[in-house]
Amino acid sequence: MKIYTYWRSQATFRVRIALNLKGLKREEVFINLDRGEQLKPEYKATNPQAVLPTLFDGNAKLFQSVAILEYLEEKYPKPPILPTDTLARAWVRGFALINVADSHPLIVPRIRNYLTDVLKVDEAAKTAWIQHWLGAGLDAMEQLLAEKNPSGKFCHGDSPTVADICLVTQVTPAQLFKCPIEPYRRVMRIYEACMSIPAFAEAHPRKQPDFEGH
Amino acid sequence: MKIYTYWRSQATFRVRIALNLKGLKREEVFINLDRGEQLKPEYKATNPQAVLPTLFDGNAKLFQSVAILEYLEEKYPKPPILPTDTLARAWVRGFALINVADSHPLIVPRIRNYLTDVLKVDEAAKTAWIQHWLGAGLDAMEQLLAEKNPSGKFCHGDSPTVADICLVTQVTPAQLFKCPIEPYRRVMRIYEACMSIPAFAEAHPRKQPDFEGH
Repeated sequence: MKIYTYWRSQATFRVRIALNLKGLKREEVFINLDRGEQLKPEYKATNPQAVLPTLFDGNAKLFQSVAILEYLEEKYPKPPILPTDTLARAWVRGFALINVADSHPLIVPRIRNYLTDVLKVDEAAKTAWIQHWLGAGLDAMEQLLAEKNPSGKFCHGDSPTVADICLVTQVTPAQLFKCPIEPYRRVMRIYEACMSIPAFAEAHPRKQPDFEGH
Repeated sequence: MKIYTYWRSQATFRVRIALNLKGLKREEVFINLDRGEQLKPEYKATNPQAVLPTLFDGNAKLFQSVAILEYLEEKYPKPPILPTDTLARAWVRGFALINVADSHPLIVPRIRNYLTDVLKVDEAAKTAWIQHWLGAGLDAMEQLLAEKNPSGKFCHGDSPTVADICLVTQVTPAQLFKCPIEPYRRVMRIYEACMSIPAFAEAHPRKQPDFEGH
């Protein structure tokens, strides 16, 4: 496998975790989003959206992190990252999408740049925007966990699923952007459980070869 | 089945199409997003995120449109809305997520309200924001279709999939917010093919009992 990656890309972080959980090795190609390398013609020829990640499984090109997680689960089912029960799968996917479809899209570099460059929003207001939307997602996750009251170690059961992967990529930027995270006791319990597993810990932005600090 | 719906909710539009394609009947509960009915305690008790849709299949509660589409496909597989081949499924899901995870989250009411109420963005700049992000998604979809050059009637093959559902929920708001759509020839060919099918046409916002015009 070959992955186009950047240390701070949360979408790529999701895929790194899944590859690690499934024991799949990868070659890495580094695309520095902060220097705009995703906009170069050679990368746009690979990924017309100019976003990360892109994953090649042999010649098969894969894009969009959630589509990649589903692909990995179908092609490399062991260990599973989705439950077997249809309703449980729906809950896990729904939980994950709070991060993927509601929170994360609002804080990616292209949005932060538009706020600054086009809307002329100052740094304080931009930080407030980021904290607001990450907080809304954390609120929703905490309430869903309260409602479900999971008895296992993770969001669903005693092994990690796509829900846990996307809980982690909700919490990591919240920490980076200094959101208050103390209120989210259930979320943080599971975050710590995830981070105690090498597959998660080694996929963390800080552990990547292209990490530059922040 | 019981669905909490609003005529202009694009996420609910996705689920309406899928229910229609699969011939599943539903009872409808109307939640007027423009009047803030999603924020009432009785709805938040059902959906802590205060978003649409929520679908009940008997007592089973389902949330987040993409998780619902996957659930419907697993529980009611005929007719399918995903291909059978693993790589084709990944392409269809990745295409759909351009709408779900990259474009649509940026134009929902809560974002438009934040732009107006908190960032004090004027109407022209708000419209430019909406058109910019919908246009970016349409660009990506058009380029993916050019790269794939589908030989069938729809995004993948001759029957509609989740990719077509999410192509439609990309185009419909683009029309509403007067984005230029002429450049997107491949997208619009498929949009017209979808809209010629009653399952799509009858799910359109304008055809809903709670439609109020715009």
